[in-house]
Amino acid sequence: MVNHPVKHLVDGVPADTVPVSNRGLAYGDGLFETVLFRGHTPVLWELHYERLVLGCKKLALDLPANQEQQLLAHCGQLLEENNPLSSIIKIMVIRNSNGRGYRPSPTAGVQTIISLYPAPDYPERWYTEGVNLWACQTRLSVNSQFAGIKHLARLEQVMASMEFSESEYQEGLMFDTDLKVIECTRSNIFFEIGDHLITPALDHAGVEGTMRAAILDCEKQLGIRISVQPVNLGDLVKAHGGFVCNSAYGIWPVRAVHLAEDKMLSWQQGSMTKMLQNHFYQTLELGVCLE
Amino acid sequence: MVNHPVKHLVDGVPADTVPVSNRGLAYGDGLFETVLFRGHTPVLWELHYERLVLGCKKLALDLPANQEQQLLAHCGQLLEENNPLSSIIKIMVIRNSNGRGYRPSPTAGVQTIISLYPAPDYPERWYTEGVNLWACQTRLSVNSQFAGIKHLARLEQVMASMEFSESEYQEGLMFDTDLKVIECTRSNIFFEIGDHLITPALDHAGVEGTMRAAILDCEKQLGIRISVQPVNLGDLVKAHGGFVCNSAYGIWPVRAVHLAEDKMLSWQQGSMTKMLQNHFYQTLELGVCLE
Repeated sequence: MVNHPVKHLVDGVPADTVPVSNRGLAYGDGLFETVLFRGHTPVLWELHYERLVLGCKKLALDLPANQEQQLLAHCGQLLEENNPLSSIIKIMVIRNSNGRGYRPSPTAGVQTIISLYPAPDYPERWYTEGVNLWACQTRLSVNSQFAGIKHLARLEQVMASMEFSESEYQEGLMFDTDLKVIECTRSNIFFEIGDHLITPALDHAGVEGTMRAAILDCEKQLGIRISVQPVNLGDLVKAHGGFVCNSAYGIWPVRAVHLAEDKMLSWQQGSMTKMLQNHFYQTLELGVCLE
Repeated sequence: MVNHPVKHLVDGVPADTVPVSNRGLAYGDGLFETVLFRGHTPVLWELHYERLVLGCKKLALDLPANQEQQLLAHCGQLLEENNPLSSIIKIMVIRNSNGRGYRPSPTAGVQTIISLYPAPDYPERWYTEGVNLWACQTRLSVNSQFAGIKHLARLEQVMASMEFSESEYQEGLMFDTDLKVIECTRSNIFFEIGDHLITPALDHAGVEGTMRAAILDCEKQLGIRISVQPVNLGDLVKAHGGFVCNSAYGIWPVRAVHLAEDKMLSWQQGSMTKMLQNHFYQTLELGVCLE
């Protein structure tokens, strides 16, 4: 499915283009967030904005103090004009350009680009029966300086996405160059092992997803034990179930993981996965009603 | 010094902007080359185009068969209109966009963006007396899939460039996450150790510079022994001289390397460095006359 953006605001002004000299284009020198909106209400907004602020700190991007209000006002403006029931707004924050060369001006501010897309419409069976994962050969680089944040330099995800057929595999599982299990191309991952959940630590590679953060936040409330830890292939093989998650679709149980030509893991639908799906359906209307 | 581009061609058509949906901007999904032109003559063109072709292969970018002639024709068009004595042309090759999402269309072709910039005018003393290097804390990620090629995802170089003052340090020396010496932010590096030169192997991290390739190509002709090998901090400390190089400035001897607050390496101007400087001044007019 190809989603054509219906509208963009560049620094708050309607525009479909950016200058060729844009540092996001030249060097990936910026960050992005993709936020699900229900009408005019952003889902998991605090977590998105928190990650954006952390990313700006890590990249020394100078986010103005009133940026949050301004971003929300710009999102509201796009939504007002288009009036969708449900949508994805992509927010890019990019370091301003000062000519050719890696070194930015020390006083370079940031540019914001906001784009409205229709919310994707995923098949109900991906929520009820689960999805298939393809274990990608493309590795995530290990670099703690850039781990966790959602910067624009995402070539690894692009190349990993090209490894599998969309019709057979809904997501690609990614390992880092140390062969630790990290995440999927556009999702985080949780495994059911015994009576608890495990999700990979992301301090050396990966993106700390907002849905992942929301799940970690409700651990106590739901009486689930979740361990954030390094995960290797052995842990993966020990799992009897699991799920992938992101803020656009919520939670999909995983039913199979294609590891290699002769090695396919088949997973049961776990009780904790279902409990979390129900929780986020009830609290955020993410996913489908399972009962 | 801020260089303002004077002209761009996007797919051969004069344009200053690209669509917000550009995949270079969204994901760093493309490659670039910065080529020095003397009048209408590109310097080291074969090496630039060879790296571009290799990069397209690694990223599964579909470079048309006649792309080389077309790129040179477009460069010629920009130069014709501007008629500079000396210039830098930046060539970007970007995967065409097909809407939001990492996965590209399997049949996506490429877009080319060509930008003309004035050639930088570096101080003569950087060629004669040498330059100072700052050892950066920002690490290069280790990932053989993306090593060697000049892709658009260059956040590491951006962050490294911000670590040092331009007035005191002309380049930043970069290590990878395994603490191997790899390159500088926009240059490759060679060390004089004993009677031969050493330059870091770039099969796990770094960009294989065209000037580096040209130097490796003239090893036999000049009777120099050059070893391409992993380089660690110990090797760096053993060096008595060395130089940095790229295709825009040629070769700068290194006179000092700032490793840490209390640790500065001082290097002699080595005989092999001078021989190479002379060679490329005579053959390509790169640098300044040293005699």
